Formats: sequence, structure tokens, C-alpha cells
Amino acid sequence: MLDSARKGTCMLFSCTIPAAWLLPDKHCTALNELLLFMALGCGCVGQAVLSRGAHGGPMTVSVGFAMAVTIAVYVSGGVSGGHINPAVSLAMCVAGRLKWTKLPIYILAQLLGAFVGAAAVFGIYHDAFMEYSNGTLEVTGPYATAHIFATYPAPYLSLINGFADQVMSTAVLLLVIFAIFDTRNNRVPKGLEPVVVGLLVIVLTCSLGMNSGCAMNPARDLGPRLFTAIAGWGMEVFTAGNNWWWVPIVAPMLGGVLGALTYIIFIEIHHSDNQQGEENDKYDKYELTNM
Amino acid sequence: MLDSARKGTCMLFSCTIPAAWLLPDKHCTALNELLLFMALGCGCVGQAVLSRGAHGGPMTVSVGFAMAVTIAVYVSGGVSGGHINPAVSLAMCVAGRLKWTKLPIYILAQLLGAFVGAAAVFGIYHDAFMEYSNGTLEVTGPYATAHIFATYPAPYLSLINGFADQVMSTAVLLLVIFAIFDTRNNRVPKGLEPVVVGLLVIVLTCSLGMNSGCAMNPARDLGPRLFTAIAGWGMEVFTAGNNWWWVPIVAPMLGGVLGALTYIIFIEIHHSDNQQGEENDKYDKYELTNM
Amino acid sequence: MLDSARKGTCMLFSCTIPAAWLLPDKHCTALNELLLFMALGCGCVGQAVLSRGAHGGPMTVSVGFAMAVTIAVYVSGGVSGGHINPAVSLAMCVAGRLKWTKLPIYILAQLLGAFVGAAAVFGIYHDAFMEYSNGTLEVTGPYATAHIFATYPAPYLSLINGFADQVMSTAVLLLVIFAIFDTRNNRVPKGLEPVVVGLLVIVLTCSLGMNSGCAMNPARDLGPRLFTAIAGWGMEVFTAGNNWWWVPIVAPMLGGVLGALTYIIFIEIHHSDNQQGEENDKYDKYELTNM
Amino acid sequence: MLDSARKGTCMLFSCTIPAAWLLPDKHCTALNELLLFMALGCGCVGQAVLSRGAHGGPMTVSVGFAMAVTIAVYVSGGVSGGHINPAVSLAMCVAGRLKWTKLPIYILAQLLGAFVGAAAVFGIYHDAFMEYSNGTLEVTGPYATAHIFATYPAPYLSLINGFADQVMSTAVLLLVIFAIFDTRNNRVPKGLEPVVVGLLVIVLTCSLGMNSGCAMNPARDLGPRLFTAIAGWGMEVFTAGNNWWWVPIVAPMLGGVLGALTYIIFIEIHHSDNQQGEENDKYDKYELTNM
Repeated sequence: MLDSARKGTCMLFSCTIPAAWLLPDKHCTALNELLLFMALGCGCVGQAVLSRGAHGGPMTVSVGFAMAVTIAVYVSGGVSGGHINPAVSLAMCVAGRLKWTKLPIYILAQLLGAFVGAAAVFGIYHDAFMEYSNGTLEVTGPYATAHIFATYPAPYLSLINGFADQVMSTAVLLLVIFAIFDTRNNRVPKGLEPVVVGLLVIVLTCSLGMNSGCAMNPARDLGPRLFTAIAGWGMEVFTAGNNWWWVPIVAPMLGGVLGALTYIIFIEIHHSDNQQGEENDKYDKYELTNM
Repeated sequence: MLDSARKGTCMLFSCTIPAAWLLPDKHCTALNELLLFMALGCGCVGQAVLSRGAHGGPMTVSVGFAMAVTIAVYVSGGVSGGHINPAVSLAMCVAGRLKWTKLPIYILAQLLGAFVGAAAVFGIYHDAFMEYSNGTLEVTGPYATAHIFATYPAPYLSLINGFADQVMSTAVLLLVIFAIFDTRNNRVPKGLEPVVVGLLVIVLTCSLGMNSGCAMNPARDLGPRLFTAIAGWGMEVFTAGNNWWWVPIVAPMLGGVLGALTYIIFIEIHHSDNQQGEENDKYDKYELTNM
Repeated sequence: MLDSARKGTCMLFSCTIPAAWLLPDKHCTALNELLLFMALGCGCVGQAVLSRGAHGGPMTVSVGFAMAVTIAVYVSGGVSGGHINPAVSLAMCVAGRLKWTKLPIYILAQLLGAFVGAAAVFGIYHDAFMEYSNGTLEVTGPYATAHIFATYPAPYLSLINGFADQVMSTAVLLLVIFAIFDTRNNRVPKGLEPVVVGLLVIVLTCSLGMNSGCAMNPARDLGPRLFTAIAGWGMEVFTAGNNWWWVPIVAPMLGGVLGALTYIIFIEIHHSDNQQGEENDKYDKYELTNM
Repeated sequence: MLDSARKGTCMLFSCTIPAAWLLPDKHCTALNELLLFMALGCGCVGQAVLSRGAHGGPMTVSVGFAMAVTIAVYVSGGVSGGHINPAVSLAMCVAGRLKWTKLPIYILAQLLGAFVGAAAVFGIYHDAFMEYSNGTLEVTGPYATAHIFATYPAPYLSLINGFADQVMSTAVLLLVIFAIFDTRNNRVPKGLEPVVVGLLVIVLTCSLGMNSGCAMNPARDLGPRLFTAIAGWGMEVFTAGNNWWWVPIVAPMLGGVLGALTYIIFIEIHHSDNQQGEENDKYDKYELTNM
């Protein structure tokens, strides 16, 4: 089964790369970023799972995934503006900072990139997959490997709790991203935003990662899931976890918009107050520079 | 019991959010920060405990909690001045950098925020709590979960040793915070202070975290403790550990003031010497730029 | 056997240091950098292996190795331009940023430096090696120590998979290095590039380190391998893993060039588009500064 | 025994603090820094040992100790110039960057500070020490706690190997510190040097920490050792490990000078070459800005 999977992978690979060239320039870059991000991110999970903990654990996965975000944002930052997450792109549209017409192409490019990135991880760790599960590709059970690519809920997790988990995680992600890139609130030195985003991903995966792996990114989840469906894991990747697959798509989209609006309503409004700055605000500003 | 707890949580939630709007603008932000900080911080402990070490350990808790501080200070920095700790706010008052009249409102907002943040963690990990302890919420024993929210002393710890521990930890915290934000001593580049505060929290939790979890923050401890008292753990959260609850409130307040005064007396006085700068000090300044 | 090995080491040591002086100035520095890099990098692996995990594990090796890269680039940056990897130097030649005539001398200096760095690790941990394997130096088996110095494939790894692994890892390495040091794309603040390269090495070793240890550097692999061949492990260091030794030399050279070309074709071309900047691009640039 | 130890500690404490006031201003600060550094640094080891690994391990000790260095240098940087290590101070004297007459006072202040810092750790973890070893304070054996304060050689380590280990570690430390603070080579942004020094300490403790704990600092080792001798561990702290105590004093002093001279001879001389800059060097400088 793996051999035919590999053949399929190669074919898909050779289809996607040329397809990328049909996309407008910047969106093609978004594809490359997601490819890079998923190859490195899924690679971290793969290394921890396939080595049975010998070459990785919670800390390498958390730090590795976070630094994959940092690196992807650095590489893409100057060209596509660091769009590696449809939930972020959608929130930018809602906040009026990205044209709505661009959204579908961005999302398509992100999805394709994540798909190819997952294929790259499967290619690089082909022999390790063979050895780990004796040539079978399983979604559940002791030799499950599907969770290397997409997220699945913990056995105890109800759909409603899992949905709330993804809404809240992504809301926090967007709220803080808006804060980091808000030029009026901005205390992060220019050029270090990707590192602080990485630190944010570290704390999110350390604190909210247990329920379902904290996808917070529809492309990061659906792209690799589609890959596994085709590459040999089968349609169980969609039915597993009580048809879990739609949660890490819908919930982050919703949560991202919620987080962005929260930032705008709770924080940005306060900025304008500051700028109209009444006299007695000066004392507060002094206080600010002292702590 | 958990179901009624959940209902109570929801009710509390819906009460606190509107209450927040009654607060003046900036203090409302302080509430949001603490909410963010506690949701992420307690989440790190929760993930390590509830997954029985599979998704976390000392390193993820230490790094995660520290980065939660960093992120909270970044988000709030531009608005409320990064006040996420009553012990810091009190020390600022004593040092003459914050109006005394503002202190009670800050502390109230911080306390409410920490309370709601704890509720968020309980909500997000509701199913995990159910699975971990079979629906019971215990303060002590092998399935204890109360220490996910508030701090409790290690079994060996006497009250006097625990009190000294919290005084010293918070004194060090404040001493270094004053050093980091002191513009005359300041060698931390502008905008990176929250990251260095995070590094400080890493070393404090790695070195002084074993006795009682190194709260160093009355709001971070009392807010979640109040939540657990109401949400189903009961009044044992106050009686446990020989009535431990008041120690992480009183000791950090005392330690914070001590640390701030130590910095002012031992370091700030030396600055003025430097500025009056006698001739033979120049050599030393050269030496300074070389190491 | 170890005693004669030590004598040989000392002799080699005393030969290499004067040999370094025959090299032109900057290349002599390249030697010193590699010496530093390998002494620290191999030391991390050595500490984890020789202490049987008591003083190290996947995280200390990954973070330690990455920070060894950061430190070596900092020390050398001002003099030789941070050339600690022949694959990077070759890619720079192909991209027209380094004179081809300088390449052989750089590579020679890097190789010598890595050789001496490995000798230093063997010297510093001489007694630990004695204790670990009772005076025998083995390439395979439960007391193998050769992998402290050079990389060897995992038992499951086929040559073709291992070759692809090294091509892809090094391609990613070079692609990101070009992005980090590209002044037009550059969002990394000046002087922090070595730290971001370190973060990149963390994610690469956390995600692609399981197959063969992720050498990505011919000098880092061949130099220490030559040392082990001479110092007592014997010619098995070349035959082990199905004559693995040539893979971490040829594949990174190929991958590095591929990664550099990918960056130039996919990203640098887009820069010039941006600079010719049509009117409707301005909206995108605004979008960029907002995320 | 512990009670009398505690009494002795208190007495010593009350003697040292006033003694500090007799020192000139800056050196008194050096004392405070070392106090801070040792309280946090030894605290990390203490937490890992006394909790039997439950609250710490190799990674928390390495990262915690390194961040303790970073924090201590930040606090002291503006006043005493970051002198937290006699080996660094001596090397600065040899390099002509510190007056020889200041050296003895610096070293005395550093030693006193480390002594008091060790006392603080013993005070804070008093109850934990009681519980860990049932009231006995042992230098060797399964309940040994002396290595929380000072360094002791691993059982396999010969004196000559241990001596070489400390010479080499400290030489690398000084070489890189000179590189980081060299204004002509300096690529570390101003104000971030303490963070890069922290990263250096991480890699040193991850790679060269297994033989004897990598003291690299005579004050950090002798001060706490003197404290343990007086506080109840007895004179065995000097005789243990084949009279090991003098090695982490003499070897770092020697290694530090060696490292500083190496930097000056191998790197600083090359700078002047660069500044006299012949025409054909320009190409190299361009190459430098590209990698």
C-alpha cells in the first residue's frame, strides 16, 4: 500500500508545483510558505511519534512548531505579508485590512501549500513510516500516524468542548497578533514580530494543546488531512473523532474574527482616547514608561 | 457536581464581563490582560497535570507561564502599562510612580480578570477534568486538580519557610523589573522588556518554584482560588496547607515593596553618583563599554 | 588502544595548529570557528550519550547544537563572514556572492577546523569515553560512540531516502539563510541574524533530525569522521550504514545549491516586481505593515 | 545539626551585609549581583535535585542557570559593568581593560556575594533539605546535596582531565565574551549582549557540563563551597573528589586569560588588517553583508 501511496504522492507533487505557477505571484509565495511551514511543523510531530519519544517530546514539538511559524513568517514577510493562516486572512478582511477579492486565492494557495508540505514530510520519513507501523497507515489505535498530519480530538473530548477550544485558541491568537502588529500599541521592535509570534505559539501549544492539538489554522489542518486521505490512510481521516474534521476549519474562522473584533473594540478604541489625550492622561503615560 | 459547577461558571462569566464595563477604561484592560494571562498560565499547568505528563512537564510549565507573562505585558503595555500584578502596582505606588488612588481599582480589575481567566481554563478543559478525576474536584490526594489554579505548599513546607520563599521571590522579581525598566540603567532595547521579563520568570520558576509554585502575584493566586471555591472544589481551597491561602497574598505584597526599595537604595543612588561623575570615573565607564 | 589514540590526537593537534598559520588570515579564522562549533556541537551529543541521558536529551542536543551555530556565526561574523558550512559557501559561489577561487581554501579550513574540534571533544571527555565503553571505541552496537562525532543513518533508512533527506534539509537551510540575509526581504534586525539562524537550526533538528541526525554540513560530518577513523574507531566509520559517509557530503552540496536557486527564482524575482511597484500594489504594502 | 546550621547562617548573613557597606560603591554592587546570580543559579540545581527530578532536569538547570547569568548582567550592567566572574575580571586586567588595583576588591565582593547567595538558597529550601536527607547534610552518597552549591567531579574524572575541562570551558567563555563585547566585531545589537551571553552559557552547560558541572567561575564555586563547609557539610567539601576544590579556582583563571589572549591574537589582529583595508578586501566585505 505504501508503494502505491508513494507513487500517488509523486504524481500529486508534480501536479501541484506547476499549478502554483498559475497563481498570481504573491499567492504562489503563500503556497511556498505553507509548504515550508507544514514540512517543518508536521516534521516535528512526526519525529516525536515515529521515534517513539527517543528524538522528541512535548517540548520539541511545541518549540519546533512555534519556530516553524517564526521562520515561515520571516521568509514570506517581505513578499506575501506573512499570510500562513486562512483564519488570519479572514480576520484581516473583516477588519478591512485585506481586500475580500483576494481571500479565496490566498486560502487556495495556503491549502495547496499545506497539502504539498504534508507530502514532503511523508516522503522524507517514508522509511520511518514503514518501520513504525509495518507498512500500514492507521488513523486510530496504538500505531496511528494520521495525527502527525492533521489534528484529532482526545478520546474524552466532546464536540462542543472541542469547538469552544478551537474558537478560544484562535481568538487569543488573533487578539495577540493584532496587538503585536498594531503600530500604535506596538512595543515589539520592528523585525522581531515573527519571533514574538513564535513565543505566542509556544505558550498556546503548552497551555491549550491537549484537547485536540491546537490547530488554530484551517489550511494547516485540512491540507494535510486531504493528503492523508489520498495517500493511504483513507476516508477514516474524515470520520474519525465523530467527524471531527470540520471543527478545526469552522471554529478557527469564527474564533479569529472574534479575537480580531475583541482587540479592536477593547484595545484600539482606547488608543484614540489616548491620542485625544486629556491633560490628566500625561501622568499615566509617565507611569507607562516606568513599567 | 460538575454540571452545577458549569452552570455557576456560566452565570459568573455573564456577571463579570458586564461588570468590567463599569470600570474606567484602562482598568478594564487590566482585567482583560489578567484574563489572558491566567487562561494561558493556568492552562500550562492544567495541560501538564491533566495529561499525566504526556503533553507537558516542568519545562513546558516554566517556559509556558513565562511566555504568558511576556504576551500579557505586550498586549497591555500600550494601554494600561503592563499592570498584571498587584505586588508590582503596590511597589510602583510606594516608589511614587503610580497614584495611590488608582491602586484599589487596578487590584480589583486584576482580581476579576484572574477569576475569569481561571473560569476559561475550567471551561476549555471541562471534559479533561471529567475524565481525569471521574467528575470529582479534589484539593488534595492523587487526583487533586486545585493546584492547577492556585498555589499550594509542598507537604514538607512550614508556614514561615513558605512566607520567606514568597517574600524573597517577589523581592527578586521587583528588583529586576525595576532594573529592566529603569531608563538610566536600561540596557534592554526598547520594546524587548517583556521578553526579558519572561526570561526572568523562567529562571524564577526553575529555581524557586519547588516550595509552593512561586505565585509572586496576589491576583494570580486569589482570583483562581476564589473561582475554585465557588466552582466545586469547596472551602477546602482555603483551609488546605495549614490555611496557606493568605501567604501568596501578604508575602508578595511585602516582598515586592522590599525588592523595589532595595533597587532604589542599592542601585539608583549609584546612578546619581555616576551622573555627578568625577573625573576618575571615566575610566570605569570605558571599562563598562568593554564588558 | 585509547592511550595510543590520545597520543595520536596530541600529535595531530600539534600538526594542525601550525598548519592553520599557513592559511591566509580569514580562512584561518574559518578554521577556528569550525573548531569552536564542533567542540560545542559534538559536545552536546557527547554529553547526552555518555551520561546515558542523565545530563542531556533531545532538547539539550537540539538547542545546544543550534546555539553553537549562533555563537560560531557571531564570533566569526566580523572576520570571515560566518562561513561555517561548505554547502553555504558553495551556494554563495553559485549565487555569485563569493569568488570561486576562495572556495577550496574555505572548505579546507572548515574541514581542518571540524577535525580539530572533534579532537577537542575527545580530549575533554577522554575519561568519560573510557568509563562508558570500557576503553573500546565502537561504531555500532549498544556502546557505540562514533555517532557523537559524525552522523549515521537510522537502521530503517534506505540510501535513497537518506539522500533525499539531506538534500531537502540543506535546501530548506539555504533558502531560509538567503531570506534572512537578503537585505531587500530582510525583516530580521541587523545583528540578530545569527540568533534567527539558531532558531532555524532548532526547528530543523526537531523536525528532520530523526533519519540521520541532520548534518546539512559536509565539513561538520567529514572532519569529525576522519578524526574518529584515525583516533581508534577505525575504517568502519566509512563502511557503516551501507557506506553512508558520502551522503552527508554530496547531498548537502546539492541541496544547498537547490535551496539557494529556489530562493532566487521564487522570492528574489518577486522583489524586483515590488520595486517596479505598480500603483495597485500600494494597498498590498499597507496590508503588509498590518500583518 | 540543621538548627545550629541555620543559626550560623543567620549570624553570617548579618555579618556580611554590613561588611558589604564597607566596600566602595561599585564593588558592593558586584556583591549584590553575585548574590542574585547564585541564589537563582544554585536554586535551579537545588530544585532539580531536591524534587528528585519532579520539578527540574538537565534542561531547566541549563536554561535556568544561563538566564540567571543574563539577569545578573542586566541588573549590574549599568553600575559595575557586569563583573560577575573573577576569571572575566582577571582577563580584563590582562587585556588592559581594568585597573589591576581594582581586581582584589572585585574578587572579594564576588566571593562574598556568592557566599551570601548560597546562604539564601539554603534558607529558602531549608525545609526541603530537611525532608530530602532527613536532617543530614552529605557531600557524597545517594543523598548528597553539596553539589547543589559547589561543583564536584564525576566519579570517572581524573584531575588532569578535569583541569583541562575547566581551562577549555573558560577559554571558550572568554573568547566569545570578548567577541560579543568587541565594538569592532560587534554584531550583537546594543543592549542584547546579556541575552547572547545567556545563550552561550546554555550551549556550554549542554556540551561541557558533564565532567564537573562546568563552574567556569572561581567565585561561583569557592563562595558556596565555603558556605557549605561552615553550614554543616564540614571540611569534606574540600577533600571530596581528590581535593577537587582548587581546580575550579585555578583552571578558570588560567583558561580565561588564555581565551582572552586567543581572541586578541586570532581575531583582533585581523580587524586592524581590515581597517587598513586594501582594495581587494572590499569584495570580501560585500560578501560579508550577504552572509
